[in-house]
Amino acid sequence: MDPDYLATLSAIVGSAHVLTSADDKATFLTDWRGNFRGEALAVVLPATAQAVAEIVLASQTARIAIVPQGGNTGLVGGSVPSPGRPQIVLALKRLREIRAVDTANRTITVEAGVTLAEVQARAAAVDLLYPVSLAAEGTAQIGGTIATNAGGVQVLRYGNTREQVLGLEAVFPDGRLWEGLQGLRKDNTGYDLKQLLIGSEGTLAVVTAATLRLSARPRQQQVAWAGLSDLAAAARLLTRVLADAGDRVTAFEVVSDVCMTLLANHLSLANPLTEAAPWNVLIEWSDPNPDAPLKDWVERVLSAAFEAGEIGDVVIAQSEGQAAALWSLREHTPEAEKRHGKAVKHDISLPVSAIPEFVRTTDALLAAAFPGALIVNFGHLGDGNLHYNLTGRTGADATAIYAASASVNAIVYDQVAKFGGSISAEHGLGQLKREVIAHYKPAVALDAMRAIKAAIDPHHLFNPGKVL
Amino acid sequence: MDPDYLATLSAIVGSAHVLTSADDKATFLTDWRGNFRGEALAVVLPATAQAVAEIVLASQTARIAIVPQGGNTGLVGGSVPSPGRPQIVLALKRLREIRAVDTANRTITVEAGVTLAEVQARAAAVDLLYPVSLAAEGTAQIGGTIATNAGGVQVLRYGNTREQVLGLEAVFPDGRLWEGLQGLRKDNTGYDLKQLLIGSEGTLAVVTAATLRLSARPRQQQVAWAGLSDLAAAARLLTRVLADAGDRVTAFEVVSDVCMTLLANHLSLANPLTEAAPWNVLIEWSDPNPDAPLKDWVERVLSAAFEAGEIGDVVIAQSEGQAAALWSLREHTPEAEKRHGKAVKHDISLPVSAIPEFVRTTDALLAAAFPGALIVNFGHLGDGNLHYNLTGRTGADATAIYAASASVNAIVYDQVAKFGGSISAEHGLGQLKREVIAHYKPAVALDAMRAIKAAIDPHHLFNPGKVL
Repeated sequence: MDPDYLATLSAIVGSAHVLTSADDKATFLTDWRGNFRGEALAVVLPATAQAVAEIVLASQTARIAIVPQGGNTGLVGGSVPSPGRPQIVLALKRLREIRAVDTANRTITVEAGVTLAEVQARAAAVDLLYPVSLAAEGTAQIGGTIATNAGGVQVLRYGNTREQVLGLEAVFPDGRLWEGLQGLRKDNTGYDLKQLLIGSEGTLAVVTAATLRLSARPRQQQVAWAGLSDLAAAARLLTRVLADAGDRVTAFEVVSDVCMTLLANHLSLANPLTEAAPWNVLIEWSDPNPDAPLKDWVERVLSAAFEAGEIGDVVIAQSEGQAAALWSLREHTPEAEKRHGKAVKHDISLPVSAIPEFVRTTDALLAAAFPGALIVNFGHLGDGNLHYNLTGRTGADATAIYAASASVNAIVYDQVAKFGGSISAEHGLGQLKREVIAHYKPAVALDAMRAIKAAIDPHHLFNPGKVL
Repeated sequence: MDPDYLATLSAIVGSAHVLTSADDKATFLTDWRGNFRGEALAVVLPATAQAVAEIVLASQTARIAIVPQGGNTGLVGGSVPSPGRPQIVLALKRLREIRAVDTANRTITVEAGVTLAEVQARAAAVDLLYPVSLAAEGTAQIGGTIATNAGGVQVLRYGNTREQVLGLEAVFPDGRLWEGLQGLRKDNTGYDLKQLLIGSEGTLAVVTAATLRLSARPRQQQVAWAGLSDLAAAARLLTRVLADAGDRVTAFEVVSDVCMTLLANHLSLANPLTEAAPWNVLIEWSDPNPDAPLKDWVERVLSAAFEAGEIGDVVIAQSEGQAAALWSLREHTPEAEKRHGKAVKHDISLPVSAIPEFVRTTDALLAAAFPGALIVNFGHLGDGNLHYNLTGRTGADATAIYAASASVNAIVYDQVAKFGGSISAEHGLGQLKREVIAHYKPAVALDAMRAIKAAIDPHHLFNPGKVL
């Protein structure tokens, strides 16, 4: 390493913002779940896009790799260093400015280090909605949600982060700052670079700011919880409620009865239905118009679904508190699973139409291969996104199954491929799925990705050991 | 040229589908407006994706360039050959299969040569909606709408073509077929190649099929036409109706009073308002629920807008026929303009918040530079997309102004740049704006585009002379 490199960084951001001691660096070098740990020469904390550009240029010259880091809430090791070469962590948390809120254009322009929750709050303050919502929103930073194309619970209605981004400001590996912060809904002037950068997990550019689309804020919501006999009924119910209410349907989540047992056993959360069913669905409807007879419509469509035999017992929340309690069941499912024991986790997506048969056949394959297995299945059915996890009936079974993670993954991912799905719906590839994706993605697509990476980042300066 | 090249093409598709005579080729070599004309060794009409791959491979070997062509309804010369090197036109019109309609997944999978209107009809047949809608939809082919990221009148509500595409099948310049026809709403497994190809105007790959997202079909609509004093009032009205009705607002179009005069003079289409206003707005609301009191809401929000002074006279269509008549005014505006005389046309987008000031200052600059000018301004205000055209008050003025197109463009485009807009909102670059975009797009973005082009298509085989 060039001995002047760290001095150059200090000259750019000030020595207080170049962390080199093990203690100072520690939290930046491991992911929050503690699954990935790396080394870095330094953690550098710039406060402006211009400083980011200067750091990149200095690193390019010194051939030191850069790991961009936002809230470090990812699940695949994408935001911490991987082994193999000298690198720094470039933490964006000091890029904190909300640069503009344009109510007439329904856009907000924020720097990368602003948290998702802060963007939501700023939008709400002007009676608009930033619709990306996920468990880590208090910590996750906008830059990271863009780098990973974050999803969450409202994708059915509003799309992924990809659909929210109208403009980007980013630093390319050659150290140049791209000022592409346009707030335009239509722009056909060549390749859509922002779409290429979104979801590229920091391997092509470092996002320093974004202009995000805001939506109309819902003024009323209804939440229902219903029991179903199987996932085929859930798919039919989804078709029914969407035909009836269109994009007023803002969430359509499924939770299996196994999850309900875990919720009861480990968190004392009771099933809201008088009679437990093999499957549960949580549906949320929203409307910006406070006068819309939303509750009447919800009751009518659920009556029709009951008469058609799609659902059994059903509860419609009678208050915001009850709605929150129903949501709490869905949201606490990962925690209940964690208390039960180790689990092999999956974040898969499939065509909705393929889900019933996928689950039936994959359940059977896993039961045959792992007789002590317990399948913990829940997720965003409306988006075709399941968190299809495997644990054991006992703690010992769970430990054995976790030790066989690779075999479990092979069964699940082969099935996902067979049914035309994706092995990473919303978490990305990072370090975790970087190697396995090569088995499931066509060579022509992998080659195109490699060619693009080499063209934009010929020295593989940005986030090495991730994605590709 | 390799003398065996045409024979190879004939062996792939049959000699009846390799057109080489001037008569047979004629309609493929010029755009429908007759503004661009090129030459081609042959027009080749494959019927399968496999044949497309074989043609690309043969052309790669022979170093003959390829111009992909769909319905050839574009406005920027993107789908006809440009001068400079030997090339063929690869017409996709025989790739006509609708491969799948998946109602549970709300997707349709179609080959590139299926027309936009056919996709709309097939979706409607299963009670769903393919929401991209534009004047050329009877002729425009899906492959072309993807290559150009087609917009249209419902982008406000449903987004551009980009937002509809879940999966792509395409042939890369090395002749490999990418089978990426997944119908997934969440997939984070590396760079989003389909987003890179969408809007790349055939310069990176040839789209052979696509899986498209379908939406809930509206079961009732309301259309209103109102007079306004200025565009600032229109922007406030847009904010009001979106806050009230959210995505029930499916169109928000503006038409200036100049347009109304042209409609009356050249097409005998009368102003529906008793008193003409400087600006007119057409608003459409849609709802999938037939029981929603949509008309009540529309009347209420328009009353509030009237009381706030945002609108003057207003008409709410009382029948489908009346709604169609109001739409007809908006849709016939280009025809009325054409009958008036030659015009310098623009397809620009701006942040909605910038439009009033942009129009005020640009109107003034044009009036000063061209004293005989008549500004014909109409478009999709909800998307910030204006067709801001310049003609003359008399035929002679119009001819003089048209002859000065470059000067007109310089004024308009400089203003667009100043206000953070785009010089091509929905038509693309093609041949028409290929050179001018280099003045308005940052060098870092142009360089990234060039690097990607060189990485994917090193011999510049695909659609040379377009975009870059």
